[in-house]
Amino acid sequence: MSHPHPELTAPPALPDNGLRVVALGGLGEVGRNMAVLETKGRLLVIDCGVLFPEDHHPGVDLILPDFSYIEDRLDDIEAIVLTHGHEDHIGAVPYLLRLKGDIPLIGSTLTLALVEAKLKEHRIRPFSMAVREGQRERLGVFDLEFVAVNHSIPDALAVFVRTEAGTLLHTGDFKMDQLPLDGRLTDLRAFARLGEEGVDLFLTDSTNADVPGFTTPELEIAPAIDKVFRHAERRIIVACFSSHVHRVQQVLDAAEKAGRKVAMVGRSMVRNMGIAAELGYLHVPDGILVDIKRIDSLRDDEVVLICTGSQGEPMAALSRMANRDHRIDVGPGDTVLLASSLIPGNENAVYRVINGLMRLGATVVHKGNAKVHVSGHASAGELLYCYNIVKPRNVLPVHGEWRHMYANAQLAIQTGVPEANVVLAEDGVVVDLVAGKAAIAGYVECGYTYVDGSNIGGTDEALLKDRRILRDEGFITCIVVLDAATGKIASGPEITARGFVEDEEVFQQVIPKVERAVEEAVANGVRDDHQLQQVIRRAVGSWVGGKIRRRPMIIPVVLQA
Amino acid sequence: MSHPHPELTAPPALPDNGLRVVALGGLGEVGRNMAVLETKGRLLVIDCGVLFPEDHHPGVDLILPDFSYIEDRLDDIEAIVLTHGHEDHIGAVPYLLRLKGDIPLIGSTLTLALVEAKLKEHRIRPFSMAVREGQRERLGVFDLEFVAVNHSIPDALAVFVRTEAGTLLHTGDFKMDQLPLDGRLTDLRAFARLGEEGVDLFLTDSTNADVPGFTTPELEIAPAIDKVFRHAERRIIVACFSSHVHRVQQVLDAAEKAGRKVAMVGRSMVRNMGIAAELGYLHVPDGILVDIKRIDSLRDDEVVLICTGSQGEPMAALSRMANRDHRIDVGPGDTVLLASSLIPGNENAVYRVINGLMRLGATVVHKGNAKVHVSGHASAGELLYCYNIVKPRNVLPVHGEWRHMYANAQLAIQTGVPEANVVLAEDGVVVDLVAGKAAIAGYVECGYTYVDGSNIGGTDEALLKDRRILRDEGFITCIVVLDAATGKIASGPEITARGFVEDEEVFQQVIPKVERAVEEAVANGVRDDHQLQQVIRRAVGSWVGGKIRRRPMIIPVVLQA
Repeated sequence: MSHPHPELTAPPALPDNGLRVVALGGLGEVGRNMAVLETKGRLLVIDCGVLFPEDHHPGVDLILPDFSYIEDRLDDIEAIVLTHGHEDHIGAVPYLLRLKGDIPLIGSTLTLALVEAKLKEHRIRPFSMAVREGQRERLGVFDLEFVAVNHSIPDALAVFVRTEAGTLLHTGDFKMDQLPLDGRLTDLRAFARLGEEGVDLFLTDSTNADVPGFTTPELEIAPAIDKVFRHAERRIIVACFSSHVHRVQQVLDAAEKAGRKVAMVGRSMVRNMGIAAELGYLHVPDGILVDIKRIDSLRDDEVVLICTGSQGEPMAALSRMANRDHRIDVGPGDTVLLASSLIPGNENAVYRVINGLMRLGATVVHKGNAKVHVSGHASAGELLYCYNIVKPRNVLPVHGEWRHMYANAQLAIQTGVPEANVVLAEDGVVVDLVAGKAAIAGYVECGYTYVDGSNIGGTDEALLKDRRILRDEGFITCIVVLDAATGKIASGPEITARGFVEDEEVFQQVIPKVERAVEEAVANGVRDDHQLQQVIRRAVGSWVGGKIRRRPMIIPVVLQA
Repeated sequence: MSHPHPELTAPPALPDNGLRVVALGGLGEVGRNMAVLETKGRLLVIDCGVLFPEDHHPGVDLILPDFSYIEDRLDDIEAIVLTHGHEDHIGAVPYLLRLKGDIPLIGSTLTLALVEAKLKEHRIRPFSMAVREGQRERLGVFDLEFVAVNHSIPDALAVFVRTEAGTLLHTGDFKMDQLPLDGRLTDLRAFARLGEEGVDLFLTDSTNADVPGFTTPELEIAPAIDKVFRHAERRIIVACFSSHVHRVQQVLDAAEKAGRKVAMVGRSMVRNMGIAAELGYLHVPDGILVDIKRIDSLRDDEVVLICTGSQGEPMAALSRMANRDHRIDVGPGDTVLLASSLIPGNENAVYRVINGLMRLGATVVHKGNAKVHVSGHASAGELLYCYNIVKPRNVLPVHGEWRHMYANAQLAIQTGVPEANVVLAEDGVVVDLVAGKAAIAGYVECGYTYVDGSNIGGTDEALLKDRRILRDEGFITCIVVLDAATGKIASGPEITARGFVEDEEVFQQVIPKVERAVEEAVANGVRDDHQLQQVIRRAVGSWVGGKIRRRPMIIPVVLQA
């Protein structure tokens, strides 16, 4: 098993009989999945997703894969293959297409519809080619075959890539629900056939590799949903991911049986379910949908709301209901169903929403007290089946943090893949398949590209550090106006400080110190603004560090008047 | 079951036959536990702990109970009873004693030793009185009896309070491990006896009330620890809470059996285990401890480190090891055992540490892949036993978020406590026991007191909002120096901005706009600094909102020179 090493350097040129894989995201993190394949000078991109920022990325809206590896080679890209329509697989497509708009997009009908809706908001009309399971498409040096896989969104695909340098099977995100609601199984017969043909490099979803056993079938949450519908006295409010068509289908079916009307709440829920219904992935019983604005004309026990906000997002409908800041005033008798996972990091936000709703008297049914969610990813037991059916020559675990990829690597080894043929790599690590053997060949620069307001890629670690200092320590601006002629202080020192518990009066104490320091410096012939700024910075810094034991951002300003 | 209502107002005067309970913390949150009892004009405080801040409290070090309810009545306080030595029960004692240093502290030997060590850092020498289980102490109108309870720290006590107005039993934090490592059981015979005497109001720990079944005995993590010791090739690094004496004891015992030496790492670990060993709560095998500085003279397979940092705290030893920023350079063959819970909100930090250690080649054993932690709190099954043994007349669930207290209330009702006698209350809600019946009598102001650097209580929601704006949006300072005589602009507008991805050049665009706005205002006779500041704020605000779509903090400065 190969580990990446910090001493890794730029890879050698790829030999003519080589197939190269470089992940620009998704290896070492849950999100922004993107793999770049290369052979004979041509590139194929598989997925192009976003990662959602954590607390140590203040002010950041989204994190993109770092495109710098391919920025100068956009013309070499044959296509972007999208395995399914989740944000962490399609969310960065608009940003890549901004660099070159005519790279073809390949994916299933639903996947393309979702990415096209997103591109429309960015005013981009893509070149797209819909494919379905079983279909084979030749794109230059890449010969693609698509395989049905089962996931928490319909119409997900794995992709098998034949090249002269070898073959590669990428599962995308998947699980192996043996009783899927739409009957669309992960096609293990295809996996078997491709395995017999020979899979040189197998890229497998690691997300649940450290979860023992098997992911529960989606079907098994039906009893929990039924129970909610049987016992609910007034409104039923269901929060789930806005891409989870099957989950919404179960709720629609239960609502139909119970004779309740359904209103969709939340922009992405309305949009995605509209697309899914139009394309036939979601069956909407006739006349069941009502507009949220019409809901007051119905009795509370005739109503189901399906909304976003299952992760405690503060601006989503559910949080606002919990805070009594929404047209739906939740109260005793209402039942809220959080039919979703709890993404690590969101716990406090979600519990805040649950507490808020319970405090208003609602019954809250969630993952913690009922079986209302199953994962969309294959657990260890399923991955073992996969390895035994495909019998790959080499394995590259993808999609997960290090602990997930490590667990996945162990599973591959347990099924008999030689340890030397299992490659543990992170974003930017170059993995070359040459003569049937995969190995780490080097490393390419691969950082984080932040979307920050309207700016893309300008935000760096230094700026994030500034924001963390502003957040934790506040800032002090100290302004001194000098008489341009005499060099004497004409106005100031003026102090402005924010983010401090101390009041203005405390800061007035530093004024004479700054005054003295500046006068002394000027007397010693210092007239350069930059040098005077340093003098002010030192005077303020030593006072604030000693007196109030803080390390705020200090901004000295010297003006000449 | 009574709910607090927003319309609650100040309570009426407490009748002479009344016993009042007001929680100033711990009801509606996990932490800063503090209950104030009152009868006949005298007060008794039970616990006085801290709450650790979350992300929406930037720059805050600790959160204290709001003492304003008792600030003017400090002379009425008979004593502070401390049920056990955890931070969320003793951490705010120094801050209360700063207001009045001679309020007696009552608790078990270990609890007092831990609080005294903490008070020493604050240069406070308390008046303290050690008690033990079975002991009865009369304090004015309060007649106290202490009962042994079992928790994740030794020497925890429940307290039974007899008053003329009725009796009250407060469990503190507890569980009912039937095979505790130190043989010290939660004394259900005492609970039974007090129940027969009559418990008018029962305050019970809600932390695990929504967890079905029974908390696993501490004993059952021994196999996981043994397995680590059997298989570890090189160093064993154990991270756990620095107060978990029993957990450390298990590790010491395993180390002794394996012939390994042990080094304690982390200030609180060294301090607390020193106290526990000195008082006989921790049995340290002869010669087993070594100083961390001496560890290099031992072979790797002779070493165990017991350290802090199990919650991913960035400055603790474990995080620094994961970041290769510690004298212990973790590598292949090393085994790290996180023998601790995962407190909600810490998931990302803990997983970051786990990934970092695994990436360095260490084997990481944690809650997710082995039974290495059990909770210190009674689960639903245990609470049912409790209610059936005590048969309280009234119940007030304490210690937990709303969802925990609600679950606890349901358990009380299920065992036959009349729904009308189960009170769901939050911090500040006044609960009066009068003539055998507990009910909500009103509400007293009860906010959050923040410890922020050296300041206590000065930080408010407005300041936290400022910090969140600085964190997410940055700030712009715009300075204009006016000629005092003419009112013409003598210097500036000068722009300073931080927390933005945009560079200085962009901000130069707003300068002519500010210039024009100020000149216009001055021409119209505006000379007041405050009014001119508003003019600048508007000019900058409309530009920045329109141009870069941000809502930064805007700080206009007008100076006269």
